[in-house]
Amino acid sequence: MYTIKDVALKAGLSQATVSRVINNHPYVSEDKKIAVKNAMEELGFVPNSSAQQMRNVKTKKIAVLVSRIANPFFSHLVDAMEKRAATYGFQLILCNTRIDKAKELEFFKLLTSKQVDGIIMASVENHWSEIEPFTKYGPIIYCNEYDPDATVTRVRLDQVEGGYMGTKHLLEKGHLKIAYCQGNDSSVSVNRRKGYLKAIAEAGIEPVKEWMFRDVFTIEDGRNIFRKIQALSNPPTAVFSGSDEVAAGIIHEAKKNSWHVPKDLAVVGFDDQPIAELLDPQITTINQFTTDIGYQTMDVMIEIINKTRINDAQDIILPIELIERQST
Amino acid sequence: MYTIKDVALKAGLSQATVSRVINNHPYVSEDKKIAVKNAMEELGFVPNSSAQQMRNVKTKKIAVLVSRIANPFFSHLVDAMEKRAATYGFQLILCNTRIDKAKELEFFKLLTSKQVDGIIMASVENHWSEIEPFTKYGPIIYCNEYDPDATVTRVRLDQVEGGYMGTKHLLEKGHLKIAYCQGNDSSVSVNRRKGYLKAIAEAGIEPVKEWMFRDVFTIEDGRNIFRKIQALSNPPTAVFSGSDEVAAGIIHEAKKNSWHVPKDLAVVGFDDQPIAELLDPQITTINQFTTDIGYQTMDVMIEIINKTRINDAQDIILPIELIERQST
Repeated sequence: MYTIKDVALKAGLSQATVSRVINNHPYVSEDKKIAVKNAMEELGFVPNSSAQQMRNVKTKKIAVLVSRIANPFFSHLVDAMEKRAATYGFQLILCNTRIDKAKELEFFKLLTSKQVDGIIMASVENHWSEIEPFTKYGPIIYCNEYDPDATVTRVRLDQVEGGYMGTKHLLEKGHLKIAYCQGNDSSVSVNRRKGYLKAIAEAGIEPVKEWMFRDVFTIEDGRNIFRKIQALSNPPTAVFSGSDEVAAGIIHEAKKNSWHVPKDLAVVGFDDQPIAELLDPQITTINQFTTDIGYQTMDVMIEIINKTRINDAQDIILPIELIERQST
Repeated sequence: MYTIKDVALKAGLSQATVSRVINNHPYVSEDKKIAVKNAMEELGFVPNSSAQQMRNVKTKKIAVLVSRIANPFFSHLVDAMEKRAATYGFQLILCNTRIDKAKELEFFKLLTSKQVDGIIMASVENHWSEIEPFTKYGPIIYCNEYDPDATVTRVRLDQVEGGYMGTKHLLEKGHLKIAYCQGNDSSVSVNRRKGYLKAIAEAGIEPVKEWMFRDVFTIEDGRNIFRKIQALSNPPTAVFSGSDEVAAGIIHEAKKNSWHVPKDLAVVGFDDQPIAELLDPQITTINQFTTDIGYQTMDVMIEIINKTRINDAQDIILPIELIERQST
């Protein structure tokens, strides 16, 4: 029986190229594809995926942990990951942790029982000390969310800069009373808050406790934030909301109560979701380039699985940018 | 070694109830849970999930085919399915077909190679004759999208009624020139169009070819539809857009061009996505009760896998409703 090596010799190309053609990898020239296919045909070589799987002992499955796929940030991220994974012949197992520590740990059984080749954590509930023991069963990497103590690859954004950028923008617009909304104590939330605190400190402003909101995630949470702001005797004039969904909820409720955005209350979102451009006023937001994070994370994971990259404590930091629109 | 049967005898309950408690099935009374747990403790019975899996030869995985998870309809649907599946101890493999016949068929290898216990098709590219041969490897059911020729269970909505309802609403608002947007020739698109054609026929209106738009899926497609409408010498006064994303694109582009919605152009969406309530004007839409479809579909799939339901040519039709807002 012929092997990939024979096909490579026949085609006058490397085994890696033959492997790429067989696995429908993108970025292989048409010439090489044709040469490989001709060589396969001449030799009567048929790539057999189950034989391949046995040889590599790979499941060709990767688990992706997100807190909630219905969050547009995650659905776009997972969409990009899946698109890239498919080009390598990999499939995704979708794991919604629903912000539950026990549920998150449960998914690591996929790795211990060899049902997946690796796990991407795009949400993080447990400390690294809980996760680390699973690394002996297969690669684990972080995407966007991360644990600073983790000794594995973290593909992420500079969220301190994100928080700083959004707050600085509001300061430049003349706001001195800026509220801050965060989710839970995830790395993303904590880092963005650092950026917020850094920006107001530079402007000589003290944080005000009643303007610091926690556990804010959804459109409905945004509506509630507006109601809380409205009820304050000393309300802020601007809000850094941490997500476009939250920003949309705040803006919608503000308008319903005849507050003018941005005149009465300026709002900065986060993510640049489609909603940010569609709302009236359009939402000033921070673009996280979700598709790029998804692609890059998947490339890194596949390289680690294929042992062409070492999974060490490395931060791969992708760019972030402010998009100024009408809500500020 | 004790079995579930022994636990059931000890607890004075059925084996099914014991199984439900072990699998964390919802809707088991606290009393029964306690009785089962006490019986398990007394016998020293420990449910072993890998032993369970071997006994049942189940993967506890279900593949869900969607065209694109980034579409909010699908991300909410899959979110609901995953939530329900988790209560039975099942996980989902996410399959984005990206409206590609070959890619769709490729996913059925998951069934032939016993990597999943069943497949839910929430998007459909191939005719039933292509799908049917795979049914001998495991259960396949349809959700929302379906093939009328299929001889398996179809959990779906009355999309003819949906199309009729939206169009009828526009007729009642006095519109006689109603454009129609559809995606491709999926069952959902075709049935909604039937409903549209039925409604205008009842009003004695002939369909106008240049008001029938095809391959319309995204916000950007919606913007293009508005540009096309604007360029017509005889433009429609209303659009039935087939999705809230498309409706949002049409409305946004209309406003940008100083058209008043609904005065100059009334717009009906579909799905009742969060965006429908947030846009200004808020979008009149058809609520598909996405969460309910997700739950119901997963219940049906699990029952079929557990052989407590037969997978025959049955339509389970869920309700649909019009939500009138400002865009009409």
